[in-house]
Amino acid sequence: MPTERTEVKRAAHRGCYDRATINAIIDAAKFCHVAYVAGGEPRMVPTAIVRLGDEVFLHGNRQSAMIQALAAGQLACVAVTHLDGLVAARSGFHCSMNYRSVVLFGPARVVPDADKARILDAFVDGLIPGHGAVVRKATRQELAATTALAIPLDEASAKVRTGGPVDDEGDLGLDVWAGVLPMAMSVGEPVPSADLKPGIEVAPHIAHLTTRP
Amino acid sequence: MPTERTEVKRAAHRGCYDRATINAIIDAAKFCHVAYVAGGEPRMVPTAIVRLGDEVFLHGNRQSAMIQALAAGQLACVAVTHLDGLVAARSGFHCSMNYRSVVLFGPARVVPDADKARILDAFVDGLIPGHGAVVRKATRQELAATTALAIPLDEASAKVRTGGPVDDEGDLGLDVWAGVLPMAMSVGEPVPSADLKPGIEVAPHIAHLTTRP
Repeated sequence: MPTERTEVKRAAHRGCYDRATINAIIDAAKFCHVAYVAGGEPRMVPTAIVRLGDEVFLHGNRQSAMIQALAAGQLACVAVTHLDGLVAARSGFHCSMNYRSVVLFGPARVVPDADKARILDAFVDGLIPGHGAVVRKATRQELAATTALAIPLDEASAKVRTGGPVDDEGDLGLDVWAGVLPMAMSVGEPVPSADLKPGIEVAPHIAHLTTRP
Repeated sequence: MPTERTEVKRAAHRGCYDRATINAIIDAAKFCHVAYVAGGEPRMVPTAIVRLGDEVFLHGNRQSAMIQALAAGQLACVAVTHLDGLVAARSGFHCSMNYRSVVLFGPARVVPDADKARILDAFVDGLIPGHGAVVRKATRQELAATTALAIPLDEASAKVRTGGPVDDEGDLGLDVWAGVLPMAMSVGEPVPSADLKPGIEVAPHIAHLTTRP
């Protein structure tokens, strides 16, 4: 159920509050934007996001202003947005975008030290599935330098637009092409690091990410 | 010059404050996230953005909570982020993303009625270049329903990461593939509207947007 903060008011028919829709939109994202209040003013940071169960996780250097503000109890507002298409209508007013977005609100919980390594591994696998199993594990110093935060998915909403333009009936006879240009993130061929040890092939968990049309 | 709000503090070498870099990142975006404060709490909305000269523009239904808050003088924090690559390192700690982002702060100015049609045309051309010239023009009611806001680019910063993983020297001998998976938005083939008037071909300004690899 939406709260006052999460209820979709503009184009309310595009609002979704079911957890499966919300989870799928978050899980398709590599990053989010996090907004919070500092000294009465808005602040916003793009950062990695990963979901495990009923929480989303953020992480960063423990001295980051965003990490410190949320760890100190500032309410977090987290948004994830995917652009799925450009909607060309016959009028400027009805031009639009297709998108899937989630906005969630919540207090952040600092992930305790005992769970931190597992959560940071989840970020690696969120970025590149399967990469967590092959990387050198985090050192004690790396763990100490990093703070991970958990935010519950209790107060989240999605907003989704799909489909073609919704033109005014009086415009349907105009000689203007109307439709959608689908958009998606594509992944190119892997570019090996300049200092890659000779003889190392691209691992299958990396190679299969390249999108071939 | 950065202000206290825009100075990039984490990975400070990735901060850029020159207007050409900032403009290019904004101009490559179809949408942004807008954060503001309402009742002491953060709010955030994804929305279209377009830049003209030294200002960025937002627009929306005049009853939108975001539009009303900014029109009433609430400070806006606007962010644009492009994901350019997944950076696979030999340690989880050094896994990263390549990105271009801009964060800007400013008070919003309500675009006066005399300029509104021109600014709304700029949104159409920002979405699909050349489409502003072919669409049915805005009616008086459409203009009245929409508020456009301008925010100066006076207080903006960019943060950019490019290149491969920066691994610890002690990890360079590991048998782990390291490198970058480039990411980019791709545009598919135009999908005509189901109610498209028979005989209308895809216009050149639409057709050429499709990315062919």
